[in-house]
Order: sequence, then structure tokens, then C-alpha cells
Amino acid sequence: MLTPATEIAFIERLASALPRSPHQINKLQEADAEIIILPGGSMGRLALSIDTIEEEIRAGLYTDPWLIGWMSVMVNMSDLAAVGADPVGILLSETIPPGCSQEFLTNLQRGITDACRACGTFVLGGDTNAAANLSITGCAAGMIPGGNLLTRRGSHVGDSLYCSGALGTGNAYAFTKLTGTNNGAIRYQPRARLLEGRLVREYASACMDTSDGVTATLDQLMRINGIGFHLEKGWENSLDGTSRELIHQTHTPEWLLLAGLHGEFELLFTIPAHLQNEFISAASLIGWTPRRIGHVTESQELAIADDAGEWVVDTGRLRNLGQIAATDFSSYLHALLDFDSSKR
Amino acid sequence: MLTPATEIAFIERLASALPRSPHQINKLQEADAEIIILPGGSMGRLALSIDTIEEEIRAGLYTDPWLIGWMSVMVNMSDLAAVGADPVGILLSETIPPGCSQEFLTNLQRGITDACRACGTFVLGGDTNAAANLSITGCAAGMIPGGNLLTRRGSHVGDSLYCSGALGTGNAYAFTKLTGTNNGAIRYQPRARLLEGRLVREYASACMDTSDGVTATLDQLMRINGIGFHLEKGWENSLDGTSRELIHQTHTPEWLLLAGLHGEFELLFTIPAHLQNEFISAASLIGWTPRRIGHVTESQELAIADDAGEWVVDTGRLRNLGQIAATDFSSYLHALLDFDSSKR
Repeated sequence: MLTPATEIAFIERLASALPRSPHQINKLQEADAEIIILPGGSMGRLALSIDTIEEEIRAGLYTDPWLIGWMSVMVNMSDLAAVGADPVGILLSETIPPGCSQEFLTNLQRGITDACRACGTFVLGGDTNAAANLSITGCAAGMIPGGNLLTRRGSHVGDSLYCSGALGTGNAYAFTKLTGTNNGAIRYQPRARLLEGRLVREYASACMDTSDGVTATLDQLMRINGIGFHLEKGWENSLDGTSRELIHQTHTPEWLLLAGLHGEFELLFTIPAHLQNEFISAASLIGWTPRRIGHVTESQELAIADDAGEWVVDTGRLRNLGQIAATDFSSYLHALLDFDSSKR
Repeated sequence: MLTPATEIAFIERLASALPRSPHQINKLQEADAEIIILPGGSMGRLALSIDTIEEEIRAGLYTDPWLIGWMSVMVNMSDLAAVGADPVGILLSETIPPGCSQEFLTNLQRGITDACRACGTFVLGGDTNAAANLSITGCAAGMIPGGNLLTRRGSHVGDSLYCSGALGTGNAYAFTKLTGTNNGAIRYQPRARLLEGRLVREYASACMDTSDGVTATLDQLMRINGIGFHLEKGWENSLDGTSRELIHQTHTPEWLLLAGLHGEFELLFTIPAHLQNEFISAASLIGWTPRRIGHVTESQELAIADDAGEWVVDTGRLRNLGQIAATDFSSYLHALLDFDSSKR
């Protein structure tokens, strides 16, 4: 997470020399989870995801052991959700500092257990290591039944842009946590949108989770699909109510809840116009109300509507501010506010 | 790796509260890779393994970036081999210190690429993180075709004990590397026994790779199966020739090549008496000569034959010496020699 745009180039350089599987459906960075056709043909598609929780711990963003355990499962389950996979389970490699208390470990495992229960899945195995800094790498496996495949690639001009739930909690939480103003009002406990992802797979042209925040997610979808997005007037109604209140109290522009790099693990996806009605009906059958926040445009840029009209966000520059975030949160906040004041 | 027996209790405590999948075939620590029946019934069995290379780097055992890359793939592929799975691919989570040179990274990726090629497999995806210490977590996936399942459980009294290849290179390498006497004579480049594992799955009652060295592996098999092992006279012929020469030059007892906790990633497996001839014939068809080194006994202990008769190894105590190895190799060597001199 906290992935600056410069890391994309780094990953691409690292990966360029690596052999790729002829059975893998998605190209590099073109899906939240890797999708592989299993040998034997009719055996379905395997989805795999790997993610490490370490920077968030070191940055002081996650201090509660329960939350660390919960997130180590959820970040990976959210990747499965974004390709519409049913989870098979998760493996965890836990690196634990020698001085870790029994109480801390118990709460860590409780967070893992609770997250697995919430996702209807299981810890399949893992290993433990000792080192100075706590870190947990999760690797989730899932199966994608027959039918559509869902990746980050496929958005077309005119598709509608939807989000699976309230936006902004990730950044509101990071703000309160890292400025020492976290009084518990902002509850951060993302839930992988597995049930929703299965439905999204049947209708959407592309999907990605907001693990790095909304604008970074849109930036990635724009790069992969060679398209742009327009966030339409009223997008603010998709913001989490409590997070929005907080932002008003601190006189901060609302759109910064989309701009920070700590995400809420909702799904952002695009639905072709002719499938919208059917999609909305199917969603209501599972008691879910996806929120339409904009549409796909031709020009590769993100335009956001506000009271003064609309303005274009330099999403690449925004992502690169993340390099500051990892070391100095206060400077990062100032950089975001500077970004906002120079926006037109 | 370098797993002391005390870690078993730690892992069991960590894992005891975790929900287990009804589709998982193996119990905790009863297989090198986790084995899961995929939903849909006829879809085959999925094998998953996760392992982190970090302690070996920190201990100074792996300094060559190519070897670090190679091992991060091989340790996981070896787990697949030990359950007789065909690899689907591997995901890698790479934690890289900010100061890492481009040359180091290139060689690291080259080691990863070469290991994948050697295993006929692929890097499916991964993520990168920045932190002070280099560490790589690999998560390998494989498929187990129809037929037998191979785990660590199933050995019976009277079964023969085999190894897949020359033993002792892991500990000979660790000895030269950590005493600063590594002149290149001991070449350490383990190769996951994937082809052999597929055959072993059809005949063996149990199997485990020697990632933690031979005696630790036998200790684990003894605990799981409630049996013992007798290493028969002539077991020394299964030792790697160069490693054996080194041990003679340093006037160290040969059996310590089995006792150290840095393994050679061969397979140790047990074959029921009535299947031995057929197994050996099948092995010769793929140009492989498995080596018989002993047999399964009733009393839960490891007996080793030598010129003076036979003696019993306290394998649990040996494994726990690993706690010293991680911090002070010289003390560990002395502890091993003390162990040897008090052996009868």
C-alpha cells in the first residue's frame, strides 16, 4: 500500500526479466489478484494475491494488534473480491519481534480469526520468523467460477463509474491517527467486498479496490485503460458521513478524502450503459446499493465536479506525494493542502 | 527455517485459535505444503506453501543476491515437491532496503528467474515494500493430480527410509560460509525435487523435505507418526562427497552433516516393503536413483549405526540448539561438538 507512481516503474523493472506463465490471464498490474487457468482446462480459474502489512505498522498507522491481524487478512481478501473470486483460504507468514507480549499476540491472532470469519474463509497455513520489526505477509487463494473474468482492464468511454460503499474512511482514519486526534469517532475496519465482487464480475467492464485511496485507484485504471474519469456533481454523497463531518470541522476540502493514499478497500468499477439497470436490480436482491459517482471519459485525466464547475487532478503527482507520507505525515498534509490551493 | 523444536509449540499456540478449512486435507504441520480440495469436487487438489527468506540473510548465510533470489523460489518449490504437486507458479513479496544497488537487484531477479526456469514455473505476481532489512516471502501454488496424497503422516514400522539425493551440503555450506572458510568448493544450489516428488507420491507412505537438515526432519516425522528411525550402516554413503571430504579435513564427526539445521532440500520419505521393487524400477525410468538409508522402527527415537555399533540421538535437544545458531554460530558449533562427545 501507500504506493507512489514511481513504484510502478520500479515493479515493472523488477518484473520485466521474469518469465510469465502462459496460463496466466492478466498482464502485470492489470488485476488486483493474479488469475491463472488451471491445467486440465475445465478446472476453473485460480486467483492468488500477496500483500505485506509492514509500512503501516512502522508509520504508526496500525498500532492495535487486532487491527493488524484483521488487515493482514482483509487486504488480500479485498484483492480476491476485486476479481470476483470465492476465497479458498489464506497463508500467513508472520515476522514477530522477540519481545512481543503474549497479550499482543493473542489479539493479533484474534484479528486474523475475526477477519477470516467475516470472509467465510480460513487460515490454511503459514510460517513464523523472528526479526526486529513486526510484519505479516498474507497470500490468499480463491477460485473464479465459470463466466466473466474481471480485471482492471476493460473500461470504455461512456461506462458508468460506481463504488461499492462509503468512501474516505481510510484517509479520515489516517488523518486522526497520525495527527493524534483519533478519539474513536472514525472507525476503521474495512470489510472485503467478496459478495459484491461476485456480482460485479458478471456486469462490470473493469474493477479495482481502493487499497491506495480513490484517486490512486482511478489513476491506475486510467493508465491501464487509456481513458479518463469524470466524478459528477453529487459524488460527495458517496463519502462516509463521519469522515465528512471531521473534514468540515478541520476546514479541509472534502476531495482530500479521495486523495490520500490510505484506502478504504471499497471496489471501484465501471458498468457499460446497457447493463446498468440489470446490475442495479441484481444488487438490490442481495441488499446492496452500489453508488454511481461518475463516468468514463475519452481524455486520460480525472475531472472532479465541485460548486465552481469542474477541475482536473494531476493524479500522478498526487500519488508521488506518497513518498513524503511514508516518512513525514505532517509535510504530506501540507503538500496535500498546497496541491488543493493550486488546483485551478 | 532454522526451526527449533520450541517453535513448534509457538506455532501451535498461534494456530490453535484459528479456524481451519473443512476442505483442507492435512492437519497443522502434517504436510510440507497445505493441501486443499477445491470446491466442485472433481477439480483436483490445490497445494500452497509460504516461506520467508530473512533469517538466513541476517545471519550472513546468504549474501549473494543471486542465491537469495534462487532460494526464495526453491524453498517453496521444495514444499510442493514434498507433496508431489505440479507447480502452477509463485508470488513474491519483496522487502528491499532503500540503499540496495541496481546490480544487487538485477542479480536477485536473475536468481529468481533461474530458479523458476529450473522448476519449469513462473512468477505470477507480487508486491514490493521498503524496509531496513532485505526479506523475501514466496508463496507457491501447485496442483496435485488424481491418485495418492502425500503428507508427513503415514509411515509404518518396517517401511524403508529413503533420501532423494546427496545429504549434507546445506550444513557443509553453512559451516564454510559462517567460519569464513568458503573457498567455493562447497557449491550450495539446492534444486526442488519436483519430478521425483511426483513419483514419490505414488509409492511413499510419508515425505518431508530436509529444509531444516536431516535430523530435524526425522524428528518431525517421528513426532507426527509416533515411530522411530534406524539409520543403517552405510548411511554415510548418502553424504555428498565434497562435504564429506571437508568434514574429514576438519576432523569433525560425519553425522554432524545431518545434525545442523541448514538443510539441503532433499526429500526424505518412507516406502512400504511391498512397494519397494516397483518404486525402484519406476525411479530408474526417470534416471533417478533414490538412496535407501534406513528403516522405520517402533520406538520413537533416532538410532544411528556407526563403527562402534549404534547410538540414539536426542533429536529434540539437537533442534533446540538452533536457538543458539541464529545468534552465535561459533557457540553453536561448540554445542554440536559437545553433543557429539557426550553421545554414548
